[in-house]
Amino acid sequence: MAGGKGDKPAKSDKSAAGAKSSKGRKKETGLGLTNTKDGNFGEWYSEVVTKGEMIEYYEISGCYILRPWTMTIWEIMQNFFDPEIKKMKIKTCYFPLFVSNNVLQKEKDHIEGFAPEVAWVTRSGDSDLEVPIAIRPTSETVMYPYFSKWIRGHRDLPLKLNQWCNVVRWEFSNPTPFIRSREFLWQEGHTAFATKEEADTEVLEILELYRRLYEEYLAVPVVKGKKSEMEKFAGGLYTTSVEAFIPNTGRGVQGATSHCLGQNFAKMFDINFEDEKGEKAMVWQNSWAYSTRTIGVMVMVHGDDKGLVLPPKVSAVQVIVIHVPYKDADVKEIMNACTSTVKTLCDLGIRAEADLRENYPPGWKYSHWEMKGVPLRIEIGPKDFANNQVRAVRRDNGEKIDIPMADLADKVKGMLDTIQQSMFDVAKQKRDACIQVTKTWDEFIEALGQKKLILAPWCDEEEVEKEVKTKTKGETGAAKTLCSPFEQPELPEGTLCFASGKPAKKWTYWGRSY
Amino acid sequence: MAGGKGDKPAKSDKSAAGAKSSKGRKKETGLGLTNTKDGNFGEWYSEVVTKGEMIEYYEISGCYILRPWTMTIWEIMQNFFDPEIKKMKIKTCYFPLFVSNNVLQKEKDHIEGFAPEVAWVTRSGDSDLEVPIAIRPTSETVMYPYFSKWIRGHRDLPLKLNQWCNVVRWEFSNPTPFIRSREFLWQEGHTAFATKEEADTEVLEILELYRRLYEEYLAVPVVKGKKSEMEKFAGGLYTTSVEAFIPNTGRGVQGATSHCLGQNFAKMFDINFEDEKGEKAMVWQNSWAYSTRTIGVMVMVHGDDKGLVLPPKVSAVQVIVIHVPYKDADVKEIMNACTSTVKTLCDLGIRAEADLRENYPPGWKYSHWEMKGVPLRIEIGPKDFANNQVRAVRRDNGEKIDIPMADLADKVKGMLDTIQQSMFDVAKQKRDACIQVTKTWDEFIEALGQKKLILAPWCDEEEVEKEVKTKTKGETGAAKTLCSPFEQPELPEGTLCFASGKPAKKWTYWGRSY
Repeated sequence: MAGGKGDKPAKSDKSAAGAKSSKGRKKETGLGLTNTKDGNFGEWYSEVVTKGEMIEYYEISGCYILRPWTMTIWEIMQNFFDPEIKKMKIKTCYFPLFVSNNVLQKEKDHIEGFAPEVAWVTRSGDSDLEVPIAIRPTSETVMYPYFSKWIRGHRDLPLKLNQWCNVVRWEFSNPTPFIRSREFLWQEGHTAFATKEEADTEVLEILELYRRLYEEYLAVPVVKGKKSEMEKFAGGLYTTSVEAFIPNTGRGVQGATSHCLGQNFAKMFDINFEDEKGEKAMVWQNSWAYSTRTIGVMVMVHGDDKGLVLPPKVSAVQVIVIHVPYKDADVKEIMNACTSTVKTLCDLGIRAEADLRENYPPGWKYSHWEMKGVPLRIEIGPKDFANNQVRAVRRDNGEKIDIPMADLADKVKGMLDTIQQSMFDVAKQKRDACIQVTKTWDEFIEALGQKKLILAPWCDEEEVEKEVKTKTKGETGAAKTLCSPFEQPELPEGTLCFASGKPAKKWTYWGRSY
Repeated sequence: MAGGKGDKPAKSDKSAAGAKSSKGRKKETGLGLTNTKDGNFGEWYSEVVTKGEMIEYYEISGCYILRPWTMTIWEIMQNFFDPEIKKMKIKTCYFPLFVSNNVLQKEKDHIEGFAPEVAWVTRSGDSDLEVPIAIRPTSETVMYPYFSKWIRGHRDLPLKLNQWCNVVRWEFSNPTPFIRSREFLWQEGHTAFATKEEADTEVLEILELYRRLYEEYLAVPVVKGKKSEMEKFAGGLYTTSVEAFIPNTGRGVQGATSHCLGQNFAKMFDINFEDEKGEKAMVWQNSWAYSTRTIGVMVMVHGDDKGLVLPPKVSAVQVIVIHVPYKDADVKEIMNACTSTVKTLCDLGIRAEADLRENYPPGWKYSHWEMKGVPLRIEIGPKDFANNQVRAVRRDNGEKIDIPMADLADKVKGMLDTIQQSMFDVAKQKRDACIQVTKTWDEFIEALGQKKLILAPWCDEEEVEKEVKTKTKGETGAAKTLCSPFEQPELPEGTLCFASGKPAKKWTYWGRSY
């Protein structure tokens, strides 16, 4: 049954049943959003993730309940990513949630990056622990002492592990569901190689999987690139990322990161091996992760003023079938047509459900399933039934088409593919329309004010990035580098850095970010 | 490649290559167990889970690293259980790791049961939290305030959720890998129904899945039954469980539990709904869980003095193929036969790998894969190659058979099924041989001394169970009820309780337990 458990579309069934016109719907049913995406993005986002039943706010600030509507998306992504990395011979492990202060401190840059956000357990029951223990903010320091133990000879390499787990970062600034939460779910891969070449190769293989997650599953366009020295992972050698962009707020958002750690942690944790010549060598390491943040980015990019808009590939329900009863019509007959439509679609592997609740009028149900972002609605009324057809309505653009029953299977499959592709295309178009090339400081500041995704020639000096940050600090946060895209436009000889006026070394994306 | 990453069979490749005779193997290679299962069970267990590469001990006591050899078993169980509960319309969710003291305290019996083991976070970075927050020991109190919010009308029921997560119970007594650890992985299901009948039905449906996990996957026989009032879940109405037994230690072990919580939590958390007549009613709730403990029980039941013995259904590697080089024989040819054998088996969906490392002699490899418990070893030497056959050796009973290459696919598939069944049968036989029916206190004490699984007629009074506990307290722990089996032997009228002499109400299993 559709819309069963956990769905609570209205305070009581009675009040909902009273709703008739679509105009009065919001007021009477509590359905609909009170904020608009353009009008007040932050409020709109909170509203859409809660009314879309993805998130429930939790009594501890910065922690959120991930409801089934969210977890299905998470599981579908996992069902893509996990087999892919298993093909790469990466194995699943699980390391403890807790880490001692002692090892947490081992890599200085690393701990500096994470220390302010670490949550500490100091007590069990009524007794104080002898020494406080930390909850993992990430697991480099949890794992690497054991990498040191397990790796002895070159035959123990590569060592490639991944775990699916929760991590805790007790951030105080502006918690936002999915995007910035104190606990989140992620996968974290940790690998060690004999050579830098192997590590480099894997960094990009994983990054490509992250791109595919965003673009093929979440229909969100991303830029692949390299982080600046300032923005790279604390303690690592270099960081690559996929960067998304939210046109409405003009903010970039780091989608997922694939780090080459170089030999820095190997040094600190003594991860050596005897190479083929019998000589002692140090391993090269990577770590990489994507988190539930992915889902927040997807909501921000696609959602509209009616609610969530979910890409078909990740939506728990791809097609919702609703019967449209009409005075004197044979409701039973129409309901049966709905049920058999669902069956036809499910047999094809399409995730279809019928909402045959009789205590809600069709208009209410339309709004309900629009709020939840279901990609395709199928309506069956007496006229459709008589004509042996159904009416299909796309969530992404509202397009309506009548489908003869005989073509149902093919047409619906085709429409879902079209929606998936179209959502990506539209998002890419919007994102691309925000990209602004700026070559001078004045252009840069103007573009920043216009919420652009700025592509600028840069001298690649840390001091300059710091200065840009200082000079753009404001209520909405400072501008910083997002990434230097791997696909570099031509950089004509003599091009100068927009900020320092020194010779530019590369094109880099800049902007405010989440 | 077999035995690659993370495998570290010996301190360095060189020392391993020096091992020749199987007699001297243990000393020279560090392979083999130094403890026996009968001689010193506790030490044997620690040794077998570490040398079998399931567990690595972690620097924080009571926390363990779950290595890939463990996680594959966990994933295989999850791949059975999760689709089964999804068929039951149970949906995946994820609630926060943290819980406030306020809600944790709400159900008095419940918190009394868990309070001494709760870990408290009191600090983040350098700052003290305003109020300490607890890490979930289980999620009843985390979830039920939201059940209260989500459930309004009868149409919101049943509400059926499950989450896969970690929980923390800071126990001080005798941490043991898998069996009793401070952090463990589990699934926890939480459901709410309009009627007690529906709740009762689900309790048993889930318990049956737990039985199948143990018996069909882990090849461990279990008894289904009901817990005594003393042993039931803190705050619940009644608890059902599957109980396993470890013959070597004579201890029962609670395998997994399916609780009916009744309306107790509903009362405390105000989980009401308007029923079909428009009247206010309270929900009936269940919660149920199985954890990584399952894997420890499996190791304890099947392992032997050569190491782990894994049931084929859950073993990451079901068949290990080893080449046996011989002076002057064409090694390349034999290696190719190994590779093509692996391919044949993998094409059938069998998890097969070849260990073609040339720096270890075959005997060393036999021991290595025996330690890891791989169900079937296939050896290919020059003679086998010449005769177009392979030699297959069963891990569970050492049986060797020659298989003509032409029959490979069928025979191996058949043998794996046979091993799975035979492991269960042997375990059941051993368990059954330990069951002792006792009707008097003296018989009871004698059986307890003989490490029996005791089945005794009982008056079902809490005071009596307490007394038995007190009277049997000793170094190895007191005897308690394990469960009253659903399959009750006949209880002739006039049968008396073995302990109190009052009229017996039911047959109950008693013993020491983990």
